Amino acid sequence: MTASGATASGEDSLIARYFRPLATEPGALGLGDDAAILKASGDDTVVTTDAIVEGVHFLSDDPPDTVARKALRVNLSDLAAKGAAPAGFVLTLALRVADDAWLAPFARGLGEDTVLFGCPLLGGDTVSTPGALTISITAFGRVAPGRMVHRRGAKPGDRVVVTGTIGDAALGLDILRGGAVAAGLADDAAAKQTLVDRYRIPQPRTALAKAVRDHASAAMDVSDGLAGDLAKLCEASGVSAAIDAPSIPLSAPAAKLLARRIVGIEAIVAGGDDYEILCAIPEPGFEAFAQRARLAGVAVTSIGTIIAGTSVPKFLDAEGTAVALPRLSYSHFEDFGP
Amino acid sequence: MTASGATASGEDSLIARYFRPLATEPGALGLGDDAAILKASGDDTVVTTDAIVEGVHFLSDDPPDTVARKALRVNLSDLAAKGAAPAGFVLTLALRVADDAWLAPFARGLGEDTVLFGCPLLGGDTVSTPGALTISITAFGRVAPGRMVHRRGAKPGDRVVVTGTIGDAALGLDILRGGAVAAGLADDAAAKQTLVDRYRIPQPRTALAKAVRDHASAAMDVSDGLAGDLAKLCEASGVSAAIDAPSIPLSAPAAKLLARRIVGIEAIVAGGDDYEILCAIPEPGFEAFAQRARLAGVAVTSIGTIIAGTSVPKFLDAEGTAVALPRLSYSHFEDFGP
Repeated sequence: MTASGATASGEDSLIARYFRPLATEPGALGLGDDAAILKASGDDTVVTTDAIVEGVHFLSDDPPDTVARKALRVNLSDLAAKGAAPAGFVLTLALRVADDAWLAPFARGLGEDTVLFGCPLLGGDTVSTPGALTISITAFGRVAPGRMVHRRGAKPGDRVVVTGTIGDAALGLDILRGGAVAAGLADDAAAKQTLVDRYRIPQPRTALAKAVRDHASAAMDVSDGLAGDLAKLCEASGVSAAIDAPSIPLSAPAAKLLARRIVGIEAIVAGGDDYEILCAIPEPGFEAFAQRARLAGVAVTSIGTIIAGTSVPKFLDAEGTAVALPRLSYSHFEDFGP
Repeated sequence: MTASGATASGEDSLIARYFRPLATEPGALGLGDDAAILKASGDDTVVTTDAIVEGVHFLSDDPPDTVARKALRVNLSDLAAKGAAPAGFVLTLALRVADDAWLAPFARGLGEDTVLFGCPLLGGDTVSTPGALTISITAFGRVAPGRMVHRRGAKPGDRVVVTGTIGDAALGLDILRGGAVAAGLADDAAAKQTLVDRYRIPQPRTALAKAVRDHASAAMDVSDGLAGDLAKLCEASGVSAAIDAPSIPLSAPAAKLLARRIVGIEAIVAGGDDYEILCAIPEPGFEAFAQRARLAGVAVTSIGTIIAGTSVPKFLDAEGTAVALPRLSYSHFEDFGP
């Protein structure tokens, strides 16, 4: 990113006005150079990149500040699941028009989150697009050398643990689309708002990153649905898992919808957009991990066990019967997948 | 990026087929995790990010392999101008459809360039878009701590130096758009092809990065036009410059167009998409710099001098008269700039 007075182009003035105030880190060079500097440190740098597209990952009428927060937070969620502390990020914005009414709250929301999560803007690029508004962020985290938590590493006997509650964001999206969930909660505006907020404003579990690094044998964030993401973690680790479906932590609105049979457990575990941490915790460390989670203010729930084998993880109901899962996860590309 | 067999979604299989073969670096984890690792080293990490959008930065019928090369090379050009050696990159692809006929040559071109420039794919994200195909790359380079070359730092008396030739890419774009340049070179297919290649396939001056780091007081790459980018470098450095316009290095086709008065020098210096290095070299080091450039096989040309002052750099013709420059650079946002 660059911002320049005498030679100000539209891009330059846009950056100067909205984004330079966010670039407080010395390595950002005030967004006035062609590159940013991540200073040498003794740590490994963890790199993650996630883009969100209007009409696909967020809705055109989502508030701009929540769009900004979501774009950053989906990346922070990856860093937390890898056990890394945020170090900064670069932003690419593809805009149809530079609309102040949209950019001002976007930049404000982004700025607030850079402070909240200690993850400064280092640089970026703004480009014009004739198409959908697209926000692409590459975020950097630090871990001690060799200590990034991988997907592989889970061992039979490890507990399967998730943070927060599962399924809310997918239910929130259904509300925004006017689906069955909206009708099922017609009497409960607060519940609807809770679920919509969970869709729009993920809560990256940054506070839990160090505990994950110290205790997890494997971890990832849940972005495409718990069932599918657990299958990925198990496959990477060469193991399987048995999940006690009634143990899956649910928000009050999700529990209500399930009790009213408006949605089934399969919608909860395949919903996506949770941005919670899924990890395998070896039994001896579980109490210490849970204690650190309590101190960090992050709910963690043990939902099952890693088992030997290579079959797709089983989700068992209260009677011990495997729940049928017609699909494991949400894919934006499922329409043309194999 | 992730690729997974048992749980393969469309995205996963697309990544496995086309991009996993490119991820040869151990830190890429075979694109099988949620993040990549840049191993701790004694160097600073230089971070740059640039996106290219269909219909804005490349044309819908540009060959896919050249689109891939351009997406990577515009970032490598930034790294070279900052004096950094390539260390890797992450890729975000926003696609309307996953079209094998487009993706196969795209991945092939990208893979060849990762080898050619020693810059491995570390990870990325593929997302669906209803709009324009967008390729966003964040690239990483290494420099010794504190040694990144900045835009600021140029001092009065330094030589202004550029690599390669200036203006070709903008002329090539004009040809692809069927403009005056195409008509002016109707008799010279080879010249037209040269200019089109310069637009589609930038030549990042990676081989010159170390010499830039050792000798330049300030540097940047020329992406938005020589005149505008020089103005930015001067402004960042708190200096001005006097450029001898007849010294600006031109390709044979560009020189021909200028001689035939089909284009003027202002189109050459404000054209953009050059991806050459612009740098200020203190006089005592110039011969050594030029010698290293010769050994690296990169043409460098001294085109003027940094001078004191804060006025916009002057481009002087053979008579010493300032060339009128109605615009300094190309901006994709100029339509709504101030």
